[in-house]
Amino acid sequence: MKLCRHGPRGREKPGLVAPDGTIRDLSGVMEELTGVADLAGAALAPRNLAKLKKLKPEQLPKVSSRARIGACVGGTRNFIGVGLNYADHAAETHAEVPKEPILFNKAPSCINGPDDDVMIPKDSKKTDWEVELAVVIGTRARYVDEKDALKFVAGFCICNDVSERSFQTERSGQWMKGKGCETFGPLGPWLVTPDEIKDVQNLDMWLDVNGERMQTGSTRTMVFGVSTLVSYVSQFLVLEPGDVITTGTPPGVGMAKKPPKYLRPGDVITLGVQGLGMQCQKVVACA
Amino acid sequence: MKLCRHGPRGREKPGLVAPDGTIRDLSGVMEELTGVADLAGAALAPRNLAKLKKLKPEQLPKVSSRARIGACVGGTRNFIGVGLNYADHAAETHAEVPKEPILFNKAPSCINGPDDDVMIPKDSKKTDWEVELAVVIGTRARYVDEKDALKFVAGFCICNDVSERSFQTERSGQWMKGKGCETFGPLGPWLVTPDEIKDVQNLDMWLDVNGERMQTGSTRTMVFGVSTLVSYVSQFLVLEPGDVITTGTPPGVGMAKKPPKYLRPGDVITLGVQGLGMQCQKVVACA
Repeated sequence: MKLCRHGPRGREKPGLVAPDGTIRDLSGVMEELTGVADLAGAALAPRNLAKLKKLKPEQLPKVSSRARIGACVGGTRNFIGVGLNYADHAAETHAEVPKEPILFNKAPSCINGPDDDVMIPKDSKKTDWEVELAVVIGTRARYVDEKDALKFVAGFCICNDVSERSFQTERSGQWMKGKGCETFGPLGPWLVTPDEIKDVQNLDMWLDVNGERMQTGSTRTMVFGVSTLVSYVSQFLVLEPGDVITTGTPPGVGMAKKPPKYLRPGDVITLGVQGLGMQCQKVVACA
Repeated sequence: MKLCRHGPRGREKPGLVAPDGTIRDLSGVMEELTGVADLAGAALAPRNLAKLKKLKPEQLPKVSSRARIGACVGGTRNFIGVGLNYADHAAETHAEVPKEPILFNKAPSCINGPDDDVMIPKDSKKTDWEVELAVVIGTRARYVDEKDALKFVAGFCICNDVSERSFQTERSGQWMKGKGCETFGPLGPWLVTPDEIKDVQNLDMWLDVNGERMQTGSTRTMVFGVSTLVSYVSQFLVLEPGDVITTGTPPGVGMAKKPPKYLRPGDVITLGVQGLGMQCQKVVACA
């Protein structure tokens, strides 16, 4: 099942993608079926996703094909990134492969629709791209074993883990300064449930800037896989439904190009992960 | 005005503290006055706080003095800490005073009532205390000037920035692993509006463990003051109503004692900041 959220920013409604590719509106049935009006919180529990799966898409109202697509999950509070989680990306940034996952936070206020503009922050000169596989939590998770970890996952989506490299590493302390800037967290278009993904550790991924291929990779080369990451994060904090873990990026980021290459207003970023759809963002100056 | 939240975890209701010290229930009027049923989000906007201030506390229902007090703000998504922000604390940890604020994240899922138990995480040996002044955001803040920063603040409260030192600094990467563990974010008891605080940069603060004084300090020795911090954070991410910045701790943390001293089940932590009330937590083993 492919779920989504459609409509103006901050007023998104839940939807699902019908077999014919049209988006069908769930807002008439969502609260009654799941107790939650949005694709958020308890609506993401397995029992509620099972109820949505029983719906007949062709009986749901069609959403205009021109509707804005929002981030594919609402109400995210923990938005966690994983650093240097692809062996080949660690190598290109001259960093060692970490012994345990490096975790950082993206501010939840940076979450954006998959095709919304990405804004260069004020005084930024090093805004960079990162195509990633993101994991959306469906069930509260604390001290979860690796073997059980996937049971806590509602689904997967694409994340562009947009990053300001100077803010991230040249401004005292922690990476979060360069990870959660406004618009730095496009999520979606679809929240794809695990049953649709044959092997989450074997998904091709790519990112283009202005049509030029920048990143090519596969979740096959992740250092720590999805199950390990969900289990690992849950040893340090309680994950709640709607929380997002974005799992790191393969090679080809701007900071590793020779010479380094960063985003500028007018650039267009397109990116995709196999089975999860595609994002397209126009880069704009700080408003 | 002193506001609070009372009732069982996850079902807290808004309240205010009457001049006679009793808590009065706001749940009958909150949504009508502010559009929000909880002390959260838009309810924290200046215009809505002004409406609450016009209420006559003696006309509101009294809350039982045995009611649990919850965290004094709901719906927090960005919970941001400031590292080494007291010159004397930086010195005790043998760290240099940073050139710009060090920011880190506490998972919003760690937020706790001021008198709820603090739980030692699984496999933790270095759980530590930190009395802090926390700032609650009332109005969406992006690229805010220092001179305007206080206009975006709904109020102040105490935070015990509970920290696991081994998770924070010995586990690859970023501090957040030791900052957001379950129960590591007691906030409250009161959300005190700025008009009640004569000078936020001149508040005494203290913390005891089992009645023994561990921390004594004053917000006077903060390296970066509240206005600077709100402005600074807003350069990197968008702050939303209900977001919390906890502003760092004065000397006397356990890791700096000789020998280091950490929390154990059965310990009792009491802490206070002048004008903001007091917290009292029992330390318990991981359940």
